[in-house]
Amino acid sequence: METWTSAQMASIDKMLNPSSIVVVGATPRMQYGGKFFTRVLSYKDRIQSFAVNPNYDDIFGERCYHTVADLPITPDLAVVIVPYHAVLATLKECHAKGIRAAIVISAGFSERGDNDRKALQDELTRYARESGIRISGPNCLGLANIRDDLWLTSSSRIKSGIPGNVGVICQSGASLFGPILSRAHEQGIGMSYAVSTGNEADLDFSDFARYMIDDPNTRVIAGFIEGFKDGRKFLEVAKLAADRGKPIVLIKIGRSAQGSRAAGSHTAAMTGADELYDAVCRQYGILRLESYDELLEIANFLAKYSDMKTAGVGLVSNSGGVISFTADMLGKHGISLPPLSDQGRERIAQLLKGFGAAANPADITGKASGEDFGEILGYMLDEPEIGTMIVACAGGNRQIEQIIEANQARNKPVAYLWTGSRHQDTGLPMLKAAGIPVFYNPATLAKGLRHLADLSNRREKGLATSDGAKAIGLGADQRKAVETACNEGARQLSEARSKSLLQAWDIPITEEQVATSSEQAAAIAARVGYPVVLKIASADIPHKTEIGGVQLDLCNKEQVVQAYDRIQANAQKHAPAAKIDGVLVQRMLDNSIEVIAGISYDEQLGPTLLVGAGGIHTELYRDVTLRACPVTPAQALDMLQELKIYRLLQGFRNVVPGDIQALIDSIVKLSHMAVQLEGVISEVDLNPILVQPQGQGAIVADALITLKTVEEAQMCA
Amino acid sequence: METWTSAQMASIDKMLNPSSIVVVGATPRMQYGGKFFTRVLSYKDRIQSFAVNPNYDDIFGERCYHTVADLPITPDLAVVIVPYHAVLATLKECHAKGIRAAIVISAGFSERGDNDRKALQDELTRYARESGIRISGPNCLGLANIRDDLWLTSSSRIKSGIPGNVGVICQSGASLFGPILSRAHEQGIGMSYAVSTGNEADLDFSDFARYMIDDPNTRVIAGFIEGFKDGRKFLEVAKLAADRGKPIVLIKIGRSAQGSRAAGSHTAAMTGADELYDAVCRQYGILRLESYDELLEIANFLAKYSDMKTAGVGLVSNSGGVISFTADMLGKHGISLPPLSDQGRERIAQLLKGFGAAANPADITGKASGEDFGEILGYMLDEPEIGTMIVACAGGNRQIEQIIEANQARNKPVAYLWTGSRHQDTGLPMLKAAGIPVFYNPATLAKGLRHLADLSNRREKGLATSDGAKAIGLGADQRKAVETACNEGARQLSEARSKSLLQAWDIPITEEQVATSSEQAAAIAARVGYPVVLKIASADIPHKTEIGGVQLDLCNKEQVVQAYDRIQANAQKHAPAAKIDGVLVQRMLDNSIEVIAGISYDEQLGPTLLVGAGGIHTELYRDVTLRACPVTPAQALDMLQELKIYRLLQGFRNVVPGDIQALIDSIVKLSHMAVQLEGVISEVDLNPILVQPQGQGAIVADALITLKTVEEAQMCA
Repeated sequence: METWTSAQMASIDKMLNPSSIVVVGATPRMQYGGKFFTRVLSYKDRIQSFAVNPNYDDIFGERCYHTVADLPITPDLAVVIVPYHAVLATLKECHAKGIRAAIVISAGFSERGDNDRKALQDELTRYARESGIRISGPNCLGLANIRDDLWLTSSSRIKSGIPGNVGVICQSGASLFGPILSRAHEQGIGMSYAVSTGNEADLDFSDFARYMIDDPNTRVIAGFIEGFKDGRKFLEVAKLAADRGKPIVLIKIGRSAQGSRAAGSHTAAMTGADELYDAVCRQYGILRLESYDELLEIANFLAKYSDMKTAGVGLVSNSGGVISFTADMLGKHGISLPPLSDQGRERIAQLLKGFGAAANPADITGKASGEDFGEILGYMLDEPEIGTMIVACAGGNRQIEQIIEANQARNKPVAYLWTGSRHQDTGLPMLKAAGIPVFYNPATLAKGLRHLADLSNRREKGLATSDGAKAIGLGADQRKAVETACNEGARQLSEARSKSLLQAWDIPITEEQVATSSEQAAAIAARVGYPVVLKIASADIPHKTEIGGVQLDLCNKEQVVQAYDRIQANAQKHAPAAKIDGVLVQRMLDNSIEVIAGISYDEQLGPTLLVGAGGIHTELYRDVTLRACPVTPAQALDMLQELKIYRLLQGFRNVVPGDIQALIDSIVKLSHMAVQLEGVISEVDLNPILVQPQGQGAIVADALITLKTVEEAQMCA
Repeated sequence: METWTSAQMASIDKMLNPSSIVVVGATPRMQYGGKFFTRVLSYKDRIQSFAVNPNYDDIFGERCYHTVADLPITPDLAVVIVPYHAVLATLKECHAKGIRAAIVISAGFSERGDNDRKALQDELTRYARESGIRISGPNCLGLANIRDDLWLTSSSRIKSGIPGNVGVICQSGASLFGPILSRAHEQGIGMSYAVSTGNEADLDFSDFARYMIDDPNTRVIAGFIEGFKDGRKFLEVAKLAADRGKPIVLIKIGRSAQGSRAAGSHTAAMTGADELYDAVCRQYGILRLESYDELLEIANFLAKYSDMKTAGVGLVSNSGGVISFTADMLGKHGISLPPLSDQGRERIAQLLKGFGAAANPADITGKASGEDFGEILGYMLDEPEIGTMIVACAGGNRQIEQIIEANQARNKPVAYLWTGSRHQDTGLPMLKAAGIPVFYNPATLAKGLRHLADLSNRREKGLATSDGAKAIGLGADQRKAVETACNEGARQLSEARSKSLLQAWDIPITEEQVATSSEQAAAIAARVGYPVVLKIASADIPHKTEIGGVQLDLCNKEQVVQAYDRIQANAQKHAPAAKIDGVLVQRMLDNSIEVIAGISYDEQLGPTLLVGAGGIHTELYRDVTLRACPVTPAQALDMLQELKIYRLLQGFRNVVPGDIQALIDSIVKLSHMAVQLEGVISEVDLNPILVQPQGQGAIVADALITLKTVEEAQMCA
């Protein structure tokens, strides 16, 4: 635990499981302070409750203390409901009393948009971090420990929930104590904790998620995020959740500039931050959703089942139409319905007596509400190729009983696609009570199954671990290459200089050398092998083609000598002021697939890697993919597999298969370089990397590295 | 009305609005026949009801006739619930009595999968079409006229509905009288008619949709389709619905082979039938959805509002989190939230008194449940740039009253994003009763608004009409060209022959001529202008490059003469048996953008047009789009705008803008050719069309036309 301290986790634990609470700002009036105190009092039999307010001696017949210092004990948790300007002083009082956790309900901070209030919130942040009294809020609506039926919230909308294994963290209190919890209740979805984090002056989504990763009662973390306070911390928690196999499902704002604006975020950049968050979610197996209902239904499903050991799914329904729609959506998401074994088919056919279809999917018409249903379901569950069963119906209580019975001995995942009204008063309530995950639309079911299958696949592919994605310290050669680059005094390194930096990271570049005479150029060409390309070598000329500084396809000495002179002449004519290092002589590589790769530094998420298809089509088709750095070889392969040109790399039409392994190797090294040189470089652009046929490497043909600023870079290096 | 007859529409009308019904196969037992008759009897006060069954003299105290012939009158509608083998005889009896409409509930036909039963169903089809007694079913669950509360169904699940303006047609009876109607009821969605069509031996989705297009009470047609019985008829109805501005929303199976299989459809081909149905939906403004809830919520919204005269949307909520999520989804779907006018902002700010945000979107916190809410909403509705208002909340009855009041004078569309539980007993029921369309998730709301905006845009762009998409008869030149092609005796026409066919349709081709000597080749080259390309001209050599039959970039007479001889030599060597017409001398065109276009004939939908990007990237990126033929110029432009290479055609980087107008012209002509030559040709492949810079045309550089079979083609031509 590096990003997080155990004291911090202990504070969160006190917030979620307090045995004593003080409400500072309790009042006898039924406003926030009064309502909150009333609620806390209702837990009197199990939680010691105190009120603090200088204006009252007692509230609701309970003693009211005038200051926190007066309290007879040190409560586990303070709930702060005082005017915004009194919050800091209150926290100081609490800290003096030894309190280490506070929920700040008070609003009037950064959400007001003016600088004074932002500064005030920053003071809260500083104070929380320095003093160790950790705070949730301000401007939050509190939280709930649903397993213990403890509702520490000022919201009056939701008063009860179902104990279960989904932990919810929501920046927006009104969304948590509105759609999220009301729909969870409606859908019978059980939860462990529900936390609204408000402005996140101190504790944020990632901190509570970190706590829930260790909490055995929380099997899935569901979040509603308008914008991450600390992208790096989110990355850490995402990585850890992936390592530990604890699924995270998220609604995250940022699909459009309009949404980002509304959420108060910054404008999205060209490879917009949203694309990057999407990439990070893919990288760590986080499912991003766009609907309250899908978030809850899928979280509930993942909280119940953690694996699809057998990929095949069985489907049974009373309706052919429901079956074809469901099979269609499952197929669209790559979930297959394997055929039944002969034995299974025969056993079911005997029960169906000529009606419906003894198959997978099984349309069993009226038998779905008959006494044979349990047996039919049991036979399907017995099928070795079926790992998960789906019942798609709107059955009555008897059917649900049969499902529970049939599954008792077998213990394979069963989910229900409910095809009736959500208001139906038979069947559905029993399903919810039995904890069988319910979906209401085939596409959501399919997404849930797909993600569960993906989580299983990630483990197999080695994607579910971030081991091996640790960047090591700078080696001596690397340090020297960086120092040399920094000492050149230009932000934009020349191609040759950029490449020598790559060489220090063992990333293969084209065979090449800078010549300072036409004779030398010809000698180099003879050594690296024809055909060659000649390019002007000058840090002052980043766009070489435009000034006639590039000559391709040179096949013999005579052509090289002529080209050398032409390039020098063009440079003198079009860039007379440029400092010329000479002319780069480079082996030309045919028969290769052009890939691009790049590094940039995101304000929120730090070093990020882009890999994509080269050429004009890159821009038209945006065949690119992103990741946070560093990446493991498995993650690099996963990136390539997301690209359309992966088919080219595998060999396609008259294109021979490329050296994917070598490309992965360079990508991984580049991602390490990105981490190690954070603060030194601002951008790396490898365009193109020429992927050679299998076994022949992946070679950087052109590179452009930009330093952060020369001064900053020199300081960091 | 060409595809449909008025007698057919009259039969459907009798089915949906009967004033007398006979149930053939009525019984006193509570099976299908008994239940159905009981239901019909319950309408006794308004509908004359008769039972027919040779085994009973009376049923439930009503007289039971032994044969249809015995009936005292000719009922409007017969409901047939007899064993499968007696259905045809029953229909004959009914016809003899003069009955012109029958709902066949009986199952045991093509759904059984064996040939005998299929043949029996075919007999029903033939009999219905010949005799004029039109049938719905067999194997259906009946239908409902919901506005008149008339439930002519054997399903016992759904017994009531809400009168309204959504007409539903569903092949699967269990889906109609299951998820569709139960959710519609749950969501308070009003309907006109609900029809299950079962096996569609006679009347199908398109026939009932055709009826509903003319029905003033049906404002939206919602369908659940496993597979169209008659693709051409669907095209006709789609076209007509677009012309008349009646929206169609569909769930259609076919997203995956697994779904198609489950629905009993054929395997999808390479440009899969599903892609083609998607294309047809885009062509005619049909919205395809993948969720019961979305189908219903969006249908309900479109039934209420038919236009977005002002594109801007206003959003008000009690929660910042709900607002940012909603704004995000709206933005993702291109729906903008215009800023308020100064006046509007000031008026709202006065009411908010410093709380929340006087803006669009408006986070009005607690004011959403206060007495000022109506006034705030009114001010937003008054904004000239706001055409549609969204309230995102879970308000109580008083808030809903205020919405109704505020909107009474203004008459702008208002929809509600419900953020509470679907079980909430205040607010929500009142919303439903008031007929304000309700959505439950921001993404569905956004899709609904997007489609409404699209329907408005389609009218502006001229896409909402199929006028101008009428193919005319063959001209004399065209007929002659076709005859010549057919008389060649080969299925695959040579490039020159293919192009001469295109020329007969006025589709520009490269300047070219077949030479039979090297001198002639040089003379042609001089006329069309250098550089030229030479290609072997032979119907027997479709793949010219492979045998060395193509020589590019020929710049002078000498090169042309050499190339001619080389090509002839290669042809003799590699294809000694081929009949050689000569060598095609063709002007080479530089500076052009490669587009491909093609025609094929879909089994279900007939002549279809493909347009896409040329080259290897076509296959990797599948940058193609499809339409049913013929297309209007507006539709052709719409196709191009769907392509990623449209950016190239508009001018991108160093590529100059292409002659889009000329390309559209060729595409439209090609689509007419496809219709006119149906039965004659089986495929046209124009690859590439070279789109020249603006004003310089779009020229077919290579073409390959395949005849259906020589015999068939000659017969048709």
